Amino acid sequence: LAAAVALGDPRATARACRSVDDGVPGSAELLKALYPATGKAWRLGVTGNPGAGKSTLVDRLIELLRAQGKRVGVVAVDPSSPFGGGAVLGDRVRMQRHFEDPEVFIRSLATRGALGGLSHTALDVARILEAWGASVVLIETVGVGQDELDIMYRADSTLVVVPPGLGDDIQAAKAGILECADVFAVNKADRAGADAVVRELQAMLSLSEVTSLSLGALGGHGTANLHGTAAGSNAASERWTPPVLKCVATTNQGVAEILAALEGHLAWLQSSPEGARRRFERARLELVQRLRDVALSRALIELGEEIDALVSEIQAQRLDPYSAGEALLARLRSQPG
Amino acid sequence: LAAAVALGDPRATARACRSVDDGVPGSAELLKALYPATGKAWRLGVTGNPGAGKSTLVDRLIELLRAQGKRVGVVAVDPSSPFGGGAVLGDRVRMQRHFEDPEVFIRSLATRGALGGLSHTALDVARILEAWGASVVLIETVGVGQDELDIMYRADSTLVVVPPGLGDDIQAAKAGILECADVFAVNKADRAGADAVVRELQAMLSLSEVTSLSLGALGGHGTANLHGTAAGSNAASERWTPPVLKCVATTNQGVAEILAALEGHLAWLQSSPEGARRRFERARLELVQRLRDVALSRALIELGEEIDALVSEIQAQRLDPYSAGEALLARLRSQPG
Repeated sequence: LAAAVALGDPRATARACRSVDDGVPGSAELLKALYPATGKAWRLGVTGNPGAGKSTLVDRLIELLRAQGKRVGVVAVDPSSPFGGGAVLGDRVRMQRHFEDPEVFIRSLATRGALGGLSHTALDVARILEAWGASVVLIETVGVGQDELDIMYRADSTLVVVPPGLGDDIQAAKAGILECADVFAVNKADRAGADAVVRELQAMLSLSEVTSLSLGALGGHGTANLHGTAAGSNAASERWTPPVLKCVATTNQGVAEILAALEGHLAWLQSSPEGARRRFERARLELVQRLRDVALSRALIELGEEIDALVSEIQAQRLDPYSAGEALLARLRSQPG
Repeated sequence: LAAAVALGDPRATARACRSVDDGVPGSAELLKALYPATGKAWRLGVTGNPGAGKSTLVDRLIELLRAQGKRVGVVAVDPSSPFGGGAVLGDRVRMQRHFEDPEVFIRSLATRGALGGLSHTALDVARILEAWGASVVLIETVGVGQDELDIMYRADSTLVVVPPGLGDDIQAAKAGILECADVFAVNKADRAGADAVVRELQAMLSLSEVTSLSLGALGGHGTANLHGTAAGSNAASERWTPPVLKCVATTNQGVAEILAALEGHLAWLQSSPEGARRRFERARLELVQRLRDVALSRALIELGEEIDALVSEIQAQRLDPYSAGEALLARLRSQPG
């Protein structure tokens, strides 16, 4: 199967994605076999709250990347049941036209259960799409919960899409995205409130001691047009300054500038010491989480009955879950696998 | 410290919460000591996207619970940086007046890093607030990402707050919340679009083979008023049917009915075989995740240098992260702790 994926066979690729998403036995072996064919693609994360117009923007970015002659993979992460584990939604309707294109491979993920690690699945599927031949893999998530941030942390570059007119709790939401955004796109910038959002994001960036630049890609909104300045100044800098760009994805205004800013980020990442440090930290995080997950799956296989017995003790208030967890680890270590 | 918390000392309680949130050594011992004082409070989850008016509704629910003479704990989970780990926002301004009330204890959580387990921290803090004396603990989260669903899964009853006028990607968001919601509140029901949202939620509930009831708590919107029917019919049923209720939290309309529906859910949970099964599953999930986390923290302590060495191997493409994770587990088991 790994060989067929590496040859670009779409059916084998779909099957490989499904194996990983379902967590079937042997999927780790498949990923090991594919691993040498990975490590070069640009992983581009796109996130934002519902209603930000994320899918339309992703659609436009695919168009631009295809015009550059690039093979594109898309991993669409849909929140779904933590109980059922199945994909509730099919692949995105809005990307339909790209489904016809043999150089674009789109895969929707079901959310893995609470124990499965959605961010691992997203990363694994991104690797499969890279092995299939994608030189850019877009990873699209909805919302800015902890798990979405976790997925974005696996991307090389992250675009955060923000609509004009921020709601009540958006302050809270922004606290999280500020740290993961490499580029901000204020979408639907032809509507009222776009400049206010730009200013608000810039104020937050300043507060976090990051100087920010406004790239007013659209005229007539009272913001100076400073095309290209962000990428230019960042290239010379130790630290990446997330540019805040306006766009209207539906009419394709400002989208090329957003892609250019993201490409600028990739160039910075590949050339700066800070970029190298980030890549090391990300690889370390992945390894540590793989260890955690493999420990858990061994425990479930080897200690299933003991776990149930301890749950009954906990429910009878004869044992607390903290001591029970420690007892299970001691048991796992006392019978080297 | 555990003794002081159990005596209701607010400063000791705040210190205990901080210890757990920061994950300081010894916090597991503290939780073990407090565990016997827990297990009786009602854990009530409240979630919803930014702009749904969640905080205002929580404020109203606190008011009602206080009028019943109950001691109330509130755990507010704010998304924040996965890197920094600190609380970005202070405690919620809107709950200010309850801060004056010695019978209400409000604690905001910083989001724990990707490895820390936000849902564990939320549950641990809920237990501390119960030990302090709360008979109801409200757990408020923002958004419907995987981690938020995970937190909601730790609650006894979950209220999902939905605004009228659903956005673009809400279909995706709803897929996740459908499975975790015990009661739906369509807030801001004096605005256009509330009935449409009620119908949409009901259609989705029907699709998932759950019969749904519309409790039109507000007159004049063309929905029949069926107060009390949901809790009544659910009490006699094997399966809980999430009622869809309208409210206007700012003017306090329909809020008492929402609390009544949630109380009906608690009564159902405590009396039905399905409720008992759910409690067992939740306890099992907690135990398994505690095991996973304790395995990870032992590995970080005992294998720190080996982990860094393997990351360098992975970055040089001489090793894949899947095999490296397995190697680390084998190492951990070969030196029983």
